[in-house]
Amino acid sequence: MNDVKEDLTRATRGEFQFIDGLRQRAASSPGHSSLLAGIGDDAAIVRETTGLNTLVTSDMLVEEVDFHRDTTTPRYLGHKALTVSLSDIAAMGARPRWALVSLGVPDDIWNSDFVDHFYEGFFGLADRYGVALIGGDISRTPHKIVIDTTVMGQCDDGRAVLRKGAQPGDLIFVTGSLGGSAAGLRLLERGARVPADEAPPDNNDPDRHILRQLSLRHLRPDPRVGWGLVLGEEQLATSIIDISDGLSSDLHHLCRESGAGARIDAAKIPIDPLVTEICGRRALDPLLLALHGGEDFELLFTVAATNLSRLPRKVDGIAITQVGEIEPQAKRVCLAEGSRVWDLEPLGFQHF
Amino acid sequence: MNDVKEDLTRATRGEFQFIDGLRQRAASSPGHSSLLAGIGDDAAIVRETTGLNTLVTSDMLVEEVDFHRDTTTPRYLGHKALTVSLSDIAAMGARPRWALVSLGVPDDIWNSDFVDHFYEGFFGLADRYGVALIGGDISRTPHKIVIDTTVMGQCDDGRAVLRKGAQPGDLIFVTGSLGGSAAGLRLLERGARVPADEAPPDNNDPDRHILRQLSLRHLRPDPRVGWGLVLGEEQLATSIIDISDGLSSDLHHLCRESGAGARIDAAKIPIDPLVTEICGRRALDPLLLALHGGEDFELLFTVAATNLSRLPRKVDGIAITQVGEIEPQAKRVCLAEGSRVWDLEPLGFQHF
Repeated sequence: MNDVKEDLTRATRGEFQFIDGLRQRAASSPGHSSLLAGIGDDAAIVRETTGLNTLVTSDMLVEEVDFHRDTTTPRYLGHKALTVSLSDIAAMGARPRWALVSLGVPDDIWNSDFVDHFYEGFFGLADRYGVALIGGDISRTPHKIVIDTTVMGQCDDGRAVLRKGAQPGDLIFVTGSLGGSAAGLRLLERGARVPADEAPPDNNDPDRHILRQLSLRHLRPDPRVGWGLVLGEEQLATSIIDISDGLSSDLHHLCRESGAGARIDAAKIPIDPLVTEICGRRALDPLLLALHGGEDFELLFTVAATNLSRLPRKVDGIAITQVGEIEPQAKRVCLAEGSRVWDLEPLGFQHF
Repeated sequence: MNDVKEDLTRATRGEFQFIDGLRQRAASSPGHSSLLAGIGDDAAIVRETTGLNTLVTSDMLVEEVDFHRDTTTPRYLGHKALTVSLSDIAAMGARPRWALVSLGVPDDIWNSDFVDHFYEGFFGLADRYGVALIGGDISRTPHKIVIDTTVMGQCDDGRAVLRKGAQPGDLIFVTGSLGGSAAGLRLLERGARVPADEAPPDNNDPDRHILRQLSLRHLRPDPRVGWGLVLGEEQLATSIIDISDGLSSDLHHLCRESGAGARIDAAKIPIDPLVTEICGRRALDPLLLALHGGEDFELLFTVAATNLSRLPRKVDGIAITQVGEIEPQAKRVCLAEGSRVWDLEPLGFQHF
């Protein structure tokens, strides 16, 4: 692998030389044994098994729209590019297995160590879940970086958890906490910078610690793969969606597909405590970030009352919170604040 | 569908509204019945069958690198974005089944009918082969259009035709003709323009006819799906690669994977007759375009001598030509011109 590494970081490497290095790196990853053929042919080959379903999702990240070169690092970007698609597979209650990455970069990025660090970030996360890199593309772009990640997963036949299964009376849960990514984005927009990639957090400086943690929630989010597996394999959830656009928008998507409505309780929303702290100092409303902020990549899911007792409290150290209930009136999504009830508008992220 | 159409072409449409239209269009296509779930959830779902393999490939097209807005049309682009990935599945001897398209466009493109026409071009080709659109992404970009297409195919277990199976003594074939796409690209670079999308060719003006045909070979290439299926299902080929970078480079790729060499005969290379004609008038060498020009999307494949008699002459109206033979000396690729033999350098396309 040392020779390969040398090739990968040489500025004068050609495209095919780089792909050779990637092919060897991919072949050494835990998930690679599941493949009949990976990188190096016209297409990758995976064996099918009756009784299983394949799930597939693609997500594009565009420089200046989804990220900025000066506020992230290539490693974080490689990690995040995989997270967005792993999160979609988790939101189907399925196990991620294989990934393809199409990466478009301008010449100056190609002639730096950016691409190597990007794939280090990618493999760091992929190896954690046994996801094998099986293909993709490398292209030149005129100016900006663009990444499109495709992830394929598997689940038992008919066990995928769709958005459309929520029933009136089901309880609504979210994993982890909300608002951290949106708060991190705002901090980055106002000039906050995460120190070097893997620098240890400076716990002696509480302000820097908060800035760092929230920025990382935006730059290097983790997908809830463990929760997705438990909810799917144990048949605990009637519906799941991941919170990528924002709780308000994603709850609307789920309700629309289920032909139902929802009522959530403002007091129960698990706002990231660091968001509450930082908003308090600036007299801002943390609830708005938790309701409408995107890219937390938490799972929003519904559980029938009869299954509540089977629900674990934590998976991979991540707790869940019950935030509301599915209601019969189609598409009506409400937010209860004390004795008042508001219509909750879908104010999350939208590209157009 | 009329209501949907109205939504699709309204400049004020939102992202989710557009995806709804796409979802309905995709659901009406012939390949859609093979799906458990398509567009509209976090991931698409496909049922697996023991005894089959899934094949998957991704290809990125970038504005100003792979195409130019002023020399193509959105319909051609939608067609070509699918062709590049269908061609990879054909080069595995497999049947294309499902596609995901990630499309990044700037605001001005979004607020035009570009995206609608792009998908018309896409579906025109997808429907021909029963390929279902099952997912993807839509993103805003700062300036340029970028497209990443993922296609999944299927074949019987172990029947995929890899690049690595060529054996010394196997005969080398190519489908169709070569050089047309590279010639078309050069004509477009020098100012040639294809008239309106679907305008009938003007056969009374031979010059315009040639310009149009060659430009279309570049802008709207067809994948050799039929040949791929025959070669794979009838187990006729020992190796296949599609000619995307150029015959010289792709033959090198194939030889390298097979641990073999090759000798091809210059006189046998099926140069597109329009390329010969247009090069003759300009005193250019059409052979160079046929050897090194990219994006013809023909198939380059090898056949054991014992299987020659089973090889059909034409599939879907496309003939094949024997151009040479696999030789034992690893990686040595030669070109015979009369009594002289040259090393054939891989001078095809490379992004970096």
